[in-house]
Amino acid sequence: MRLVIIGADAAGMSAASRIKRRRPDWEVRVFEKTGDVSYSACGMPYNIADPGRDMDDLVVRRAEVFRDKQGIDLRTGHEVLGIDRFARRVFGKTASGHAFEDSYDRLILATGALPVLPDLPGTGLPGVMTLKSLEDGRRIKVFLQEQGVSSAVIIGMGYIALEMCEALCARGIRVEMVKPRPAFLPWMPSEMAAVVREELETQGVRLHLGVEIRGIEARDGHLEVACADRHLPADLVLVAVGVRPNSDLAAKAGLQLGAAEAVAVDRTMRTSDPAIYAAGDCADAFHVVTGQRVWIPLALRANRGGWAAADHLAGASASLQGVAGTAVFKVMRLEVARTGLDRAQAERAGFDPVEVVIRSRSRAHGHPGNRPIWVQMVADRASGRLLGAQLVGEEGAAHRVNAAAVALHRHMTVAQFSQCDLAYAPPFGPVWDPLLTAANQLLKQASG
Amino acid sequence: MRLVIIGADAAGMSAASRIKRRRPDWEVRVFEKTGDVSYSACGMPYNIADPGRDMDDLVVRRAEVFRDKQGIDLRTGHEVLGIDRFARRVFGKTASGHAFEDSYDRLILATGALPVLPDLPGTGLPGVMTLKSLEDGRRIKVFLQEQGVSSAVIIGMGYIALEMCEALCARGIRVEMVKPRPAFLPWMPSEMAAVVREELETQGVRLHLGVEIRGIEARDGHLEVACADRHLPADLVLVAVGVRPNSDLAAKAGLQLGAAEAVAVDRTMRTSDPAIYAAGDCADAFHVVTGQRVWIPLALRANRGGWAAADHLAGASASLQGVAGTAVFKVMRLEVARTGLDRAQAERAGFDPVEVVIRSRSRAHGHPGNRPIWVQMVADRASGRLLGAQLVGEEGAAHRVNAAAVALHRHMTVAQFSQCDLAYAPPFGPVWDPLLTAANQLLKQASG
Repeated sequence: MRLVIIGADAAGMSAASRIKRRRPDWEVRVFEKTGDVSYSACGMPYNIADPGRDMDDLVVRRAEVFRDKQGIDLRTGHEVLGIDRFARRVFGKTASGHAFEDSYDRLILATGALPVLPDLPGTGLPGVMTLKSLEDGRRIKVFLQEQGVSSAVIIGMGYIALEMCEALCARGIRVEMVKPRPAFLPWMPSEMAAVVREELETQGVRLHLGVEIRGIEARDGHLEVACADRHLPADLVLVAVGVRPNSDLAAKAGLQLGAAEAVAVDRTMRTSDPAIYAAGDCADAFHVVTGQRVWIPLALRANRGGWAAADHLAGASASLQGVAGTAVFKVMRLEVARTGLDRAQAERAGFDPVEVVIRSRSRAHGHPGNRPIWVQMVADRASGRLLGAQLVGEEGAAHRVNAAAVALHRHMTVAQFSQCDLAYAPPFGPVWDPLLTAANQLLKQASG
Repeated sequence: MRLVIIGADAAGMSAASRIKRRRPDWEVRVFEKTGDVSYSACGMPYNIADPGRDMDDLVVRRAEVFRDKQGIDLRTGHEVLGIDRFARRVFGKTASGHAFEDSYDRLILATGALPVLPDLPGTGLPGVMTLKSLEDGRRIKVFLQEQGVSSAVIIGMGYIALEMCEALCARGIRVEMVKPRPAFLPWMPSEMAAVVREELETQGVRLHLGVEIRGIEARDGHLEVACADRHLPADLVLVAVGVRPNSDLAAKAGLQLGAAEAVAVDRTMRTSDPAIYAAGDCADAFHVVTGQRVWIPLALRANRGGWAAADHLAGASASLQGVAGTAVFKVMRLEVARTGLDRAQAERAGFDPVEVVIRSRSRAHGHPGNRPIWVQMVADRASGRLLGAQLVGEEGAAHRVNAAAVALHRHMTVAQFSQCDLAYAPPFGPVWDPLLTAANQLLKQASG
């Protein structure tokens, strides 16, 4: 049996390793366009923050290990350009320009995501960067080192934009952030988004919201982001307006696409062609709250999807529950976490959402080091079902969100969640955990 | 309707406040033996650690607020000595020695727990202390301040003993701990208990395990804990060998006792007498994993029990799921957390436990500040049901345990739990959260 995998990052290499453990006799061949395999993309901003760290620290397992120790036929510098589903063949070209082709019995697509590039003049100028691949990371790091960057403009204000903002600030770079839409973290209740915004501004970051961006220009040896009503000069411009699934190959091969044009997969990671699986950022998933297809590209899902595809291929049982959309990120001193649906998503999914935002404390009343923590919780009015939660605070937000995530997986009502026996000790929270306080308030509001 | 409550701490005052909100016309009378009401007992070690903090900082709400703002007839210095269930009367005496009696329509027992005093000579000597009431806390604090304590022996090594050890160390006091049984944290796998033990020893604490204690003696102006094979001198001896439910009043009145001789209550907090409720440390509860009666005296349960009793009295629906035994405490730089059953408890409850202990990291591979974190997870072999989890680490242990606690409430299997979409970002953990790694290992072991 020959398994071909396209893409050698989290999903692809998780699948390759797992299938080799379960079926050592299978021939497993991986084609990877770049020279990099199996690295922690999420770690890039933190690596960039520290000039002393090598970018290759982020490599989880080196290509030679996959080849020599695991017997995986890993071919870097091999870009697959097409799939012939009827002949079960893939074809492409190598980095040095040579054509290649190969046959498969089973195929896994693990082609990841691509950064969205806004349709603006100037995105090709030197010093205008995106951050998706490890090579992007190296490029930014070298640029910072060699060009003596003292100011940067970040276009976009999502996770990556905010993490990169922190990284650049850590290197003493003056950062301004700009986006066309008026709301900062639009999925977050405004009072909580204001907490994050204030933290950024306190740390010296200037935010420009609701600003029409016309293009990026090179001027007198530096760059300038030209907006309708202002000009933002910078030594570096980072474009971080989001990512899209890299499903072009699948689409060309006639595979069915799902949420956000990602490759549609079932709970065993099979695409519309039973010989082809897809996992990681290129594939969609089912949302545990709505049951609907969604595209939420995150690292855990990629790893888990790779395993599930391998398990199913190997004949083991594999049926993924799906994603809750649990995510966490750090913004300067703040932890920001979410799981499940925000209010607008709940409405779009056909629920009648009721929402609370509470402010509690990270430690017991009067305990030294006590910091505020905010919790948003949203539920369905009719059924009382918990639909989502968000947290912001200097401590205790990141891991707390997981309790709510588990509750979403089990379709708990807020009343049920409010009865959970959560941990208490004065250094770690109030007697009523902030999540429980939010649940209690939500119950009161729903019944009032 | 006249509601009488015996005991004015967490459970008693939660119930009193809640019933007054729901039924403002009810007469609510609370008898409290001591002069203190509604304080954070769990905060006492942390308060004792800091000579600059007033013990009364721990009072959550003052007696006058309950009386004047909430209309609760709160009588401190009133010890109830007996209950006449047929006449529905209570009788007792005041701190100044006057007899009193009163009638009730409904009664809530919220008499809490009492420290266990081992049957040893010398426990009555000056300088031999226990820590249960706020008055105990004040006594210890004054003693530390006035007697220039430079060394202490703690008898016992449970939560309170360990928290007090940290508090005394923080004040520069040399601490030795002693217990007769040989195992340190016997409910914890030995490799994890060793981590905690090492932390204590690194911080200069001497532990004496498996040592027969014969008594406490006063000698040349200091104390000495006399053991079979050694003598431990100290300026202060803290006896912290555990607590027992204060159910004497209930027993004398002929109410049914449950787990650990606590007052047996149903899910609405009613005792065997439908006119009498019990809540807090004096009452038992149902364990969400076993469904059996247990006695686990913790603060959240006390507050929740007070509310539930009040809700049921007021005619609202109230049925408690029960406790998972979730607990967390801090030992020097370590967070120690548990939920559900340990291996021995699982066996006693009739399960066939399978257990793993894994060592993971608190942050992503290579992320600065990364610290080890240990997770134990136990499941039932036949059903695959998750039965319990424990964590130890310098960061990320305390709040992580709650995800497992929620899973226990919903009777999740390890396979289901392993699919939960938990949060990931490099500053907060590896891609596979340590809980998920433990679950994955447990699945492998159970199937292997």
